[in-house]
Amino acid sequence: MTYCVGLLLKAGLVLLSDTRTNAGLDNISVYRKMFTFEEPGERVIVMMTAGNLSVTQTTLARLGEAVDDPEATPQTSIMRAESMLDVATITGEMLSHVTAETKARMDRMNQAATASMIVAGQRRGGRMRLFLIYPEGNFIEATDDTPYLQIGEHKYGKPILDRVITADTPLEEARKAVLLSMDSTLRSNLSVGMPLDMAIIETDALRVSEHRRIEANDEDFAAMSAAWSQALRDAFARIG
Amino acid sequence: MTYCVGLLLKAGLVLLSDTRTNAGLDNISVYRKMFTFEEPGERVIVMMTAGNLSVTQTTLARLGEAVDDPEATPQTSIMRAESMLDVATITGEMLSHVTAETKARMDRMNQAATASMIVAGQRRGGRMRLFLIYPEGNFIEATDDTPYLQIGEHKYGKPILDRVITADTPLEEARKAVLLSMDSTLRSNLSVGMPLDMAIIETDALRVSEHRRIEANDEDFAAMSAAWSQALRDAFARIG
Repeated sequence: MTYCVGLLLKAGLVLLSDTRTNAGLDNISVYRKMFTFEEPGERVIVMMTAGNLSVTQTTLARLGEAVDDPEATPQTSIMRAESMLDVATITGEMLSHVTAETKARMDRMNQAATASMIVAGQRRGGRMRLFLIYPEGNFIEATDDTPYLQIGEHKYGKPILDRVITADTPLEEARKAVLLSMDSTLRSNLSVGMPLDMAIIETDALRVSEHRRIEANDEDFAAMSAAWSQALRDAFARIG
Repeated sequence: MTYCVGLLLKAGLVLLSDTRTNAGLDNISVYRKMFTFEEPGERVIVMMTAGNLSVTQTTLARLGEAVDDPEATPQTSIMRAESMLDVATITGEMLSHVTAETKARMDRMNQAATASMIVAGQRRGGRMRLFLIYPEGNFIEATDDTPYLQIGEHKYGKPILDRVITADTPLEEARKAVLLSMDSTLRSNLSVGMPLDMAIIETDALRVSEHRRIEANDEDFAAMSAAWSQALRDAFARIG
C-alpha cells in the first residue's frame, strides 16, 4: 500500500509520499514514490505513484525515455508539453497504456495490477495545477473547493485535511497538516511506512522550493507526532 | 454501508451502531442494526449487523424463531446456550447458512451478498465477551490487548479508539470515545448516518444498563461534535 497526498494552495503546492512497498506481507521494501522533473524558471513537475510497482516504474521509465528522446515533441514529452493539462494527458495515456500491457499478462494468472498517480506542477505562463490520474488514464483536478488529492490508503489521513485545509492555508500550516495526515496513516496501516518524501513548490517559483526526505529517526517528525498524540488526548479529556 | 463498534472494558460493554442502509446511492433508508436479547439476571446479548440487509434480517429472524421454538435446545437457541462462546457459535452458523443460501441466488445474477456481526454479552456465571462474526461464520474475540471490534466502515473511526481506549477505560470516557469515533465516520462517509443506537452493559449487571437512540437533532451529540472539531483545530494550531 501507499499514501500520497498533494495540496493545491494559493501559496503553492505541498506534496508528501511514503516509500513502503510490499509484495505480500512478508516482502517489504523501500521505493521512492515521488519523482521530480524540473527546468528551473521554465517548468516544474512532481509526480507521485500508488499501486503496482511494475506498472508505476515502467510508466515513469517510459515518460523519462520520452523526455530524453532527441525527437521528443510537445505531444510526447512532459518537458515540452505546452501546459500542465497536456502533462496530465501524456502521463495518463502512458499509465493507461502500461496498465493495459500488464493486464494482458496478469489476466492469464487471474491477477490484477493497477496504479494511480498524482501529477502536480506549473509551466511558465500557466498556473499551478494538481491532478489525480486513474489507472484508465482519465484524471480529475484539485480546485478551490477541494484543494487536495490523495492516492493509496487515503481514509485515515482525510479527517485532518477536511478540518484544516482550505485554498488559503499558508505553506507552514499545510506542511504540518500533511505530516499529521501521514502520521495518522502510518499509525493505522503497517503497509504505509517511513521514510517520507516531501516537496514544496511555491507559487510561480517554477522550481522545487524544498525537497526533503524525512527518515524514520527524524526528531522533528517524532516530536510533532508525539505532540499531536498528546494534544488529541488532552482535547479528548477536556470535552464533555 | 454501516459503522458499528463494540468495546469490551473491565467496567462493561459499550456498543454503538448507526442506522443507515442503502440499496444504491439513491435508495437510502433507516434500519435498526442493534438487537437485544435479554433475560435480566440470567443473560444479556446485544448483536449488531453490517452488510447485506436481506442476509442480516433473515439471520436475526431465524435466531429469534429458534429462541421461540418450544423445542429449543442449548444447541439451537442463543437464550439457552451455555456460554457466550456457544452464542457466538450458533450465530456464526446461522449467518454462514443464510449467506450460503443467498449466495446461490446471487451467483446467478453475478452479485455478492455478505454480512458480518458483532455479538456481545454475558451469561450468569460467565464473563463478558465480545465477538466479531465473519460472513463465513468463524469469529474472533476482543481481548485486553485489543479491547474493541468494529464492522462496516471502520477506518475513519479507528484512530481515536487506538489513542484513548484500553481495557481500563471507564464507561463515561468509553461512551465519549465511541461517539467521537462515530462522529469522524459520519463526517467522512455519507453512507453512515443518524440516528444512532447505543447500549451499555455494566459488568455483571446481566441486563442492558442503558439503551439510547440518538436522533439526528440530538443537542448533546451536536455539542460534543462541535467541541471536538474546535478542540482539534485548537490542538492543530498549538503544535509546532
